[in-house]
Amino acid sequence: MKKANKKVNAAIIIIGNEILSGRTQDVNVEHLSKWLNNLGVKVEEVRVIADLENSIINTINEVRKKFNYVFTTGGIGPTHDDITSKSIAKAFKLKYDFHREAYDILEKYYKPGEFNEGRKKMAKIPDQAALIYNPSSGAPGFIVENVFCLPGVPSILRSMVEGLKNKITGGKKILSKTISVNTVESEIAKPLEDIQNKFENIEIGSYPFFRLGKVGVSIVMRSTELEQIKDCTKQIQSFIKQKKIKILRSE
Amino acid sequence: MKKANKKVNAAIIIIGNEILSGRTQDVNVEHLSKWLNNLGVKVEEVRVIADLENSIINTINEVRKKFNYVFTTGGIGPTHDDITSKSIAKAFKLKYDFHREAYDILEKYYKPGEFNEGRKKMAKIPDQAALIYNPSSGAPGFIVENVFCLPGVPSILRSMVEGLKNKITGGKKILSKTISVNTVESEIAKPLEDIQNKFENIEIGSYPFFRLGKVGVSIVMRSTELEQIKDCTKQIQSFIKQKKIKILRSE
Repeated sequence: MKKANKKVNAAIIIIGNEILSGRTQDVNVEHLSKWLNNLGVKVEEVRVIADLENSIINTINEVRKKFNYVFTTGGIGPTHDDITSKSIAKAFKLKYDFHREAYDILEKYYKPGEFNEGRKKMAKIPDQAALIYNPSSGAPGFIVENVFCLPGVPSILRSMVEGLKNKITGGKKILSKTISVNTVESEIAKPLEDIQNKFENIEIGSYPFFRLGKVGVSIVMRSTELEQIKDCTKQIQSFIKQKKIKILRSE
Repeated sequence: MKKANKKVNAAIIIIGNEILSGRTQDVNVEHLSKWLNNLGVKVEEVRVIADLENSIINTINEVRKKFNYVFTTGGIGPTHDDITSKSIAKAFKLKYDFHREAYDILEKYYKPGEFNEGRKKMAKIPDQAALIYNPSSGAPGFIVENVFCLPGVPSILRSMVEGLKNKITGGKKILSKTISVNTVESEIAKPLEDIQNKFENIEIGSYPFFRLGKVGVSIVMRSTELEQIKDCTKQIQSFIKQKKIKILRSE
């Protein structure tokens, strides 16, 4: 029970020039964060870094000590700009060579004669790494200590994380409750701050929106403590009612 | 001319629990990166951090020394979780109080009687900061030294950056050329690596895609050197032709 109560955190490291240049819109953070939330792991930092060996080594060696889990995306394919595996090996001072199990998987995955040099590169993984199986396209990801290396292609990443649940020891599940109201932030800033000051275990966020010609604010409570979220919800509903503000949605 | 040739880089710091939790999909990185590319500024790192004073102070004080420009998004609204302005003031050891010009702008923006406490908070900006005007919703952003603080709401951010061009001294514009081909990465990995080794001023990226039932690879060249991109393009087209691979698009 002690284990289930402790806070568990993670960082996500997106490795890819294409995200930094704005060419490609990242969508993996959203998916990984929600998936980790459900397992009781809170993502506390995300970094997007370039396909440069030193950036990868330095970033990984910094964050793996600061967070319980680190997830990387991108850079494990067959081309010259895929340098994640080699860089992770260097970060951990591990040998970078053909990984027997990965090699066998890929050799079986491709038709005879199609397991070419580029594809063989994907079997090069840090020595001693555990594999993350890939039900979509063969090439595995891998785990070294608390660092989980996944591909950048969103559909492949999603299929791979599904198999990882039993590798993650999370804390209590992070719950959230959202109340969307038909007002502007400045109208509710003061009472919301007073309530936040009463609930130190709840993170209350306030997010304005402009949708379908309507302005509104989504008040989001996040916490591992269900009862406290219920109490907090009551207090928010109460001042919203007092101020005669319309609740648009509660979910 | 020397100025125009030097490399100018930037970091983007997204401040917001809602991005870390996966509740909200960031779209500001893509917009800012493309806008900066056009001004000859290369985004070399992105971080997403929590609405926590220490995270903001430590991150800003680290990155403002490492990069020519730093752009922050989020946390400059009227509610308790908007702590960017105060944290930036602390990072720079500046006074955090009502900023005369910001106060005047907001006072004129709202109807008499509507300039309430929450809205007044948005006039609290680090002392000596220059303002970034907001044509969408009144509340300004601000600049302290090389750190530019913008809001998180994408439509407002976009309207504000348009006025910032003359505040940025970029290097040479970063050009890009994309050739999309109907093959898989492993087929072109070796020749592409050989070409990359010949062009040290060009960043060649290889990105697989799966669209409309077709598999393909986008080969992206990025560089400030137009003539070198042209040479590189010729060499890529030449091996693509030799391998009888179909070019789907060249742009």
